[in-house]
Amino acid sequence: MILYSYFRSSAAYRVRIALHLKKIPFEYRPVHLVKDGGQHNKDEYKKLNPMGQVPCLVDGDLALSQSMAILMYLDRNHPSPRLFPEDAKELAKVIQVCEIVNSGIHPIQNLRVMQYLDEKFAIGADGKAAWAAHWIRAGFEGLEKTLEKYSGAFSVGDTLSAADLFIVPQVFNAHRFKVDMKPFPRLSKIEKKCLEIEAFQQAVPDRQPDSE
Amino acid sequence: MILYSYFRSSAAYRVRIALHLKKIPFEYRPVHLVKDGGQHNKDEYKKLNPMGQVPCLVDGDLALSQSMAILMYLDRNHPSPRLFPEDAKELAKVIQVCEIVNSGIHPIQNLRVMQYLDEKFAIGADGKAAWAAHWIRAGFEGLEKTLEKYSGAFSVGDTLSAADLFIVPQVFNAHRFKVDMKPFPRLSKIEKKCLEIEAFQQAVPDRQPDSE
Repeated sequence: MILYSYFRSSAAYRVRIALHLKKIPFEYRPVHLVKDGGQHNKDEYKKLNPMGQVPCLVDGDLALSQSMAILMYLDRNHPSPRLFPEDAKELAKVIQVCEIVNSGIHPIQNLRVMQYLDEKFAIGADGKAAWAAHWIRAGFEGLEKTLEKYSGAFSVGDTLSAADLFIVPQVFNAHRFKVDMKPFPRLSKIEKKCLEIEAFQQAVPDRQPDSE
Repeated sequence: MILYSYFRSSAAYRVRIALHLKKIPFEYRPVHLVKDGGQHNKDEYKKLNPMGQVPCLVDGDLALSQSMAILMYLDRNHPSPRLFPEDAKELAKVIQVCEIVNSGIHPIQNLRVMQYLDEKFAIGADGKAAWAAHWIRAGFEGLEKTLEKYSGAFSVGDTLSAADLFIVPQVFNAHRFKVDMKPFPRLSKIEKKCLEIEAFQQAVPDRQPDSE
């Protein structure tokens, strides 16, 4: 398998964790989101992923984008450890937590949105960081309360699941944009717990070949 | 089951289509996102969904938010018609299309983001519509190309799937924000095909009890 990734992309980070957890060998191909006007905008890359985003996972003739799609695909073909529970209720809880990050927080503080905001309103680096912090904080307030209902040792109960793979990269972004994590003890606890696991350590941005 | 919904919410629209397709009886409870500073912001509603968003589906002791989580939950317990394919590759394609809308387009043009933009930059109604149209257009360019690879009579192959439930409400938003649909013939064809189906007709915003 080939993973097109950018060290700092939190969607790519999720997939890296899954690949390491499942011990699937893969070739890492960096796609720089800033250099040369963004290598993800090149025609060659857009042939693989017409949305021009990372990650993209190539497995034979399948070029798959969207971290949720990639994680579910990997989980079907490499079910150990299982990231999506079999039980309908447990699965729903896991997906709910994943999506609070995946559709509720991350897209609004994504690089391309902040670049466009800067183009339109000249908000600068500080304005971009404030925008990101605002949406992370707003999302974490709801997410922390959701975890009050669902979490045990991990985000949903006591078993590692895909939910944890979405939370750790989002908390990484929170640190990057200087969000005070004190109001979010459950999120902090889950981050700490996960970062003790080797696969999570292997997937962190500063251990990637394209890290700066 | 009880569905907390807002007629114009495209995430709630997706769930309404699924409930009608699967012929699951449900009670419709409107949550007005604008009136009274947003009824979704009230403490009572946030007890059900700490993120304070619609939709929220209540089934016994489970209060579930996030349309993707709700759709997967319904699909497990009421598998006819099936919205998520069994086959790993087909499932991945369906989720990829769902997520292009769910995490790639819709969150950025969501009401709360546009309200905040207006608060910060006083962009007004025209500025909000232009913002929404920009992100819908950008997303549709990649989505249309993805459909060139995947679509048949429906978004992924010739069988109706969850992907179609994400596309129809997003195209509804595109019309609302006056996005020219001529460059997106596949999206238009899928919308037309789906709106011939009774369950889609029952779920459209202007047929809901809280429609204005």
